[in-house]
Amino acid sequence: MSHSDHRPGTLIHGGAVFPHRHLTGIEGLQPHEITFLLDEAEQWVEANRSHAKGDGRLAGLTQINAFFENSTRTLLSFEIAGKRLGADVVNMHAAQSSVKKGETLIDTAQTLNAMRADVLVIRHMSSGAVKLIADKVDCPVLNAGDGRHEHPTQALLDALTIRRRRGAVAGQRVVICGDLLHSRVARSNILALTALAAEVRVCAPSTLMPPAIERMFVTPYTDFDAALEGADVVMMLRLQNERMEGALIPSPREYRLRYGLTPERLARAKPGALVMHPGPMNRGVEIDSSVADGIQSAITEQVAMGVAVRMACLDVLTRRARGVEGWA
Amino acid sequence: MSHSDHRPGTLIHGGAVFPHRHLTGIEGLQPHEITFLLDEAEQWVEANRSHAKGDGRLAGLTQINAFFENSTRTLLSFEIAGKRLGADVVNMHAAQSSVKKGETLIDTAQTLNAMRADVLVIRHMSSGAVKLIADKVDCPVLNAGDGRHEHPTQALLDALTIRRRRGAVAGQRVVICGDLLHSRVARSNILALTALAAEVRVCAPSTLMPPAIERMFVTPYTDFDAALEGADVVMMLRLQNERMEGALIPSPREYRLRYGLTPERLARAKPGALVMHPGPMNRGVEIDSSVADGIQSAITEQVAMGVAVRMACLDVLTRRARGVEGWA
Amino acid sequence: MSHSDHRPGTLIHGGAVFPHRHLTGIEGLQPHEITFLLDEAEQWVEANRSHAKGDGRLAGLTQINAFFENSTRTLLSFEIAGKRLGADVVNMHAAQSSVKKGETLIDTAQTLNAMRADVLVIRHMSSGAVKLIADKVDCPVLNAGDGRHEHPTQALLDALTIRRRRGAVAGQRVVICGDLLHSRVARSNILALTALAAEVRVCAPSTLMPPAIERMFVTPYTDFDAALEGADVVMMLRLQNERMEGALIPSPREYRLRYGLTPERLARAKPGALVMHPGPMNRGVEIDSSVADGIQSAITEQVAMGVAVRMACLDVLTRRARGVEGWA
Repeated sequence: MSHSDHRPGTLIHGGAVFPHRHLTGIEGLQPHEITFLLDEAEQWVEANRSHAKGDGRLAGLTQINAFFENSTRTLLSFEIAGKRLGADVVNMHAAQSSVKKGETLIDTAQTLNAMRADVLVIRHMSSGAVKLIADKVDCPVLNAGDGRHEHPTQALLDALTIRRRRGAVAGQRVVICGDLLHSRVARSNILALTALAAEVRVCAPSTLMPPAIERMFVTPYTDFDAALEGADVVMMLRLQNERMEGALIPSPREYRLRYGLTPERLARAKPGALVMHPGPMNRGVEIDSSVADGIQSAITEQVAMGVAVRMACLDVLTRRARGVEGWA
Repeated sequence: MSHSDHRPGTLIHGGAVFPHRHLTGIEGLQPHEITFLLDEAEQWVEANRSHAKGDGRLAGLTQINAFFENSTRTLLSFEIAGKRLGADVVNMHAAQSSVKKGETLIDTAQTLNAMRADVLVIRHMSSGAVKLIADKVDCPVLNAGDGRHEHPTQALLDALTIRRRRGAVAGQRVVICGDLLHSRVARSNILALTALAAEVRVCAPSTLMPPAIERMFVTPYTDFDAALEGADVVMMLRLQNERMEGALIPSPREYRLRYGLTPERLARAKPGALVMHPGPMNRGVEIDSSVADGIQSAITEQVAMGVAVRMACLDVLTRRARGVEGWA
Repeated sequence: MSHSDHRPGTLIHGGAVFPHRHLTGIEGLQPHEITFLLDEAEQWVEANRSHAKGDGRLAGLTQINAFFENSTRTLLSFEIAGKRLGADVVNMHAAQSSVKKGETLIDTAQTLNAMRADVLVIRHMSSGAVKLIADKVDCPVLNAGDGRHEHPTQALLDALTIRRRRGAVAGQRVVICGDLLHSRVARSNILALTALAAEVRVCAPSTLMPPAIERMFVTPYTDFDAALEGADVVMMLRLQNERMEGALIPSPREYRLRYGLTPERLARAKPGALVMHPGPMNRGVEIDSSVADGIQSAITEQVAMGVAVRMACLDVLTRRARGVEGWA
């Protein structure tokens, strides 16, 4: 593909191709910077298919995954990504954490920093917590999801999946459907996809639609059938269990009737439209099994892209510290 | 010993020495295949005694230990085994797992697969869950214990312990005593030991004896004293705490009186008979401390064999993917 | 500095410089042995500042961190230390542990030993538990904190921090203030600092002062203001949450009034006196934020010294097994 015809790691546009110290969100990234990260990820997509997947480029570096909120797949994905690149990967689980002893977030950040982490991967239940930590430490910080704010590597892996399956992101009509109000996945995806010139439609019950969402350059729908008209990509969001029991939706069964991706509903999108879901899925609620496992589904491919994208981010963010030519 | 006089990894019998993709159980293994795994383990028994224990043969490979049921020693053993061979080892704990979010087992399996695991080690509380996963993934799967079904590496380490301490497995009279009804350890051991031509006696209270156990080519006893007559090996099973409070046994004290391995009772077996226990032990219930710590006990040796056997299994199952000569 | 002018790892005083198999406490160490460990740590302080922090000297060795009591920073610190030296590091968490199944501590120790650990790092809630394990295993044991007994690497990192910031430990007037009765940190620090010829004052409410503390060659105070007179170093202890609600102190607010390190109180110490805390801190209780974050604070430096000290201990204790010249 033409998008990787420059050597990874070289400078383009007469300056640093990725001038950011941290990756706290998609917000603030230029389109060519997003594209650069996707280009970098391509090499790892291929490498991960062999049994010698990474190389030792992060050897000697300490990657700390500090997860203040439980996670399985994102933690696994970052841990695998770091280990494949040769980093010393250490997990800090919230359950064992000093945070439970009343330590402040800043103290925790300074502790991790003092242990000479070379890169911190942070997940936190509070929006903005990752940025707060990034401001206090000497090493690059990667946001693995913070509150309702951002989940940038999820957006990157989704963009990479779309680019590889559809040839490009620009011009694609992408429908994002589900709990937009509480979703950092949706927020980061909207930012990335609009930056890459996709046409983004969002769809949610009015109780789960953020106010003034149009300002994010998307078209809001409450009618899923209407939103699906001519869609190239249908991205379903996970319905959090706590919403199912809340006042925001009537019932899981009712939700499925209006917002679940059934085979009948998928037929309203373009033939061969891509089906995506960040996982874990509530089968039979926001997505039917026949759709999730169908030929149009890219759901397991998203997981594979996740490891590749995280390898790319870990590599790129540590280049300056590693003295890689053109970055130091 | 004569059992390792062929080069590990070479073909024997004019075909692949270990033609199985997975190790989900002892069932279905040929005696020479079991013997091959034991032979392979021998090299690691020696290597583990030095300070340079493994080698980098699994370098670049990703081993995911997905434990849906808590475990300490089995998880530790597999983790140490993989790391000694140079693999990137990643643990997925059930407690942090998406399974808690209602994700199906198949979705979890597909996620681990999409991350390009090179070998999966699975423990699960449901019999058959490991097989279910094995059918859905592209990489070898190792069963680390599933429900009441199988725990094949435990049976292999027990067979290796017997072979090393008694010279051979064939012809040994082995008594397995305890909760046979619920024990995957007993089940895998019966399959392995009978395949290797040991004479196996099983002993349990009638409430804990599986129906029609004779069909597994063992002789059932409810009288432990009678079973011990002329035994070469006495293998005690752990009495699960939940049984102790249940209706299946009268009380731990009563259990010990009839089925506990006391010094007096051990005297009924052959002089120098081997004492085994998969651990963790309930001292003073199924086994007395003086027996567990006595000269006939092979209990800590079993633990050492466990690491060696798991190194062998991880090595053998990944040979095809690594392109080892004669396996690819 | 002159304290590192002999080559690390060489013999001094005509014999092994560190003749101990384990590090279960500061008690029993000669002053020159403590100094030797601090000297060894110096190289890692420097190395940790680069991105290639350790080397492969522990490659092939298995380090098991068996933490029977929760911990974040100490576990992280030992895990990072071992990985930087190239060891295969495996964590055993109490929460998943066989200990929960009623296994005895000795059985757990023998299990870890049988897996051929090359070094065990143990934390346990019971005083003396680490020594008990050390007596049963073939490999070196490092105490990462046991009950109210000792936390030797904490004392070493504190001594290293003082030596680097004040030029020497000998002759320094160090005030240790807080819950002396329950603190293993205080106990190990008193032993190390007095061995290195510091003048140690201890300060606590009378309910939290151990009886006959004078026998440890320290001067006890109940009046913090008086203790601070002419202090070179002020070392605050963490007030455990369970004490705050107990009968031993009136209230956190009252405690701060009499024993909290406020800016006004710090002014009673020597100008530029060093402020230390083992973390995690209760800001606004035993220490004010302006002091913790002030120019005299060495608190984050302590964390950095912790990794270096643990690297030194892991290296030194495994030299014999690794056949390092002069140690085997």
